[in-house]
Amino acid sequence: MLTLYYAAHTCSLASHIALLDAGADYELRRIDFSKTQQQSADYVKINPKARVPAMVTPRGTLTETPAMLAFIAQSFPGAQLAPFDDPFAFAELQSFNSYLCSTLHVAHAHRMRGHRWANDPASFADMQRKVPVSVGACFDLIEGSMLRGPWVMGSAYSIADPYLFTLAQWLEADGVDPKRIPRVTEHRSRMSERPNVTRAIAEELAN
Amino acid sequence: MLTLYYAAHTCSLASHIALLDAGADYELRRIDFSKTQQQSADYVKINPKARVPAMVTPRGTLTETPAMLAFIAQSFPGAQLAPFDDPFAFAELQSFNSYLCSTLHVAHAHRMRGHRWANDPASFADMQRKVPVSVGACFDLIEGSMLRGPWVMGSAYSIADPYLFTLAQWLEADGVDPKRIPRVTEHRSRMSERPNVTRAIAEELAN
Repeated sequence: MLTLYYAAHTCSLASHIALLDAGADYELRRIDFSKTQQQSADYVKINPKARVPAMVTPRGTLTETPAMLAFIAQSFPGAQLAPFDDPFAFAELQSFNSYLCSTLHVAHAHRMRGHRWANDPASFADMQRKVPVSVGACFDLIEGSMLRGPWVMGSAYSIADPYLFTLAQWLEADGVDPKRIPRVTEHRSRMSERPNVTRAIAEELAN
Repeated sequence: MLTLYYAAHTCSLASHIALLDAGADYELRRIDFSKTQQQSADYVKINPKARVPAMVTPRGTLTETPAMLAFIAQSFPGAQLAPFDDPFAFAELQSFNSYLCSTLHVAHAHRMRGHRWANDPASFADMQRKVPVSVGACFDLIEGSMLRGPWVMGSAYSIADPYLFTLAQWLEADGVDPKRIPRVTEHRSRMSERPNVTRAIAEELAN
């Protein structure tokens, strides 16, 4: 059994979808950001980073979406969610997910989490104004150089697809016009029609 | 043959050390940041992200340090730089490297690269002032919860070690007192005595 600690509308959705894609036996534990439950003493014992997602496994707790996605894929090889037997293809997949985590998600975080990197409310407002540019540049790169189609890595669906879908949920709120990146938008639409995606979103909102 | 595009004093050092640890056949290509060579038309053809590192392989080009490090480890299994046959242990290693990439390196980048996320020089100054706090908090977490010792993942040296060493090179410039994190500092000292580490640094400065 795997236990996923999540919050709705966050990047934990990527791992949630991947758990369904893998056919994993899992349970969900909601962390309520409106009550800053991610900073509670009980949760910090599970994840000292005080963030979501975290996944409790029989061997211990994992954090960081790229690592959790690869763990899900490697633990359920029958679902063929990552090419572990091909070091170059696996590295390309991990490179994509690493970019989402360290560049795209970070750019997005400057809209609401400026306090992580500055102190002055004027700086937060300046950061917020730049989000459409910085997030937009990431999506331009994904559109033009990284998304192969029909799935992120080409013909094979992989753990990169729920991750891109999850971060593309935030396009409009980040001030990026979806029409500017039609291939990303088409990928998002196709993902949103997958039963595991609608089920994951419904579970998060119902929980 | 692998070709590593690097710049001295950047995170490309981690992959460089790992190439030596792996016993890989490689060549170095220096990208001169003082001439903004990372944005040159020739280099952007190799890496559209206009950053280092990039590694050209017989199959294509890889970017993103966590993915490159895993590729090196998986391509040279004899060097035993990552536990690929143990999904949980491999995920723990990837989680560590992902944290360095997406949280520690990002916090550090706010000292010199504030323009990525804001426009106003006053915001850049505010970000710079916060770097000792934000980078310091990352190293506190590494010191207290993540670095197992003697190596990052415990008794086995891995691709996490050159990566932590590389980012710990920046401690003093980021305004973090090394005495505050004695285990990280001891790890850095032991790493700096490894022949592959002194060789990698010498090659980067000589090139």
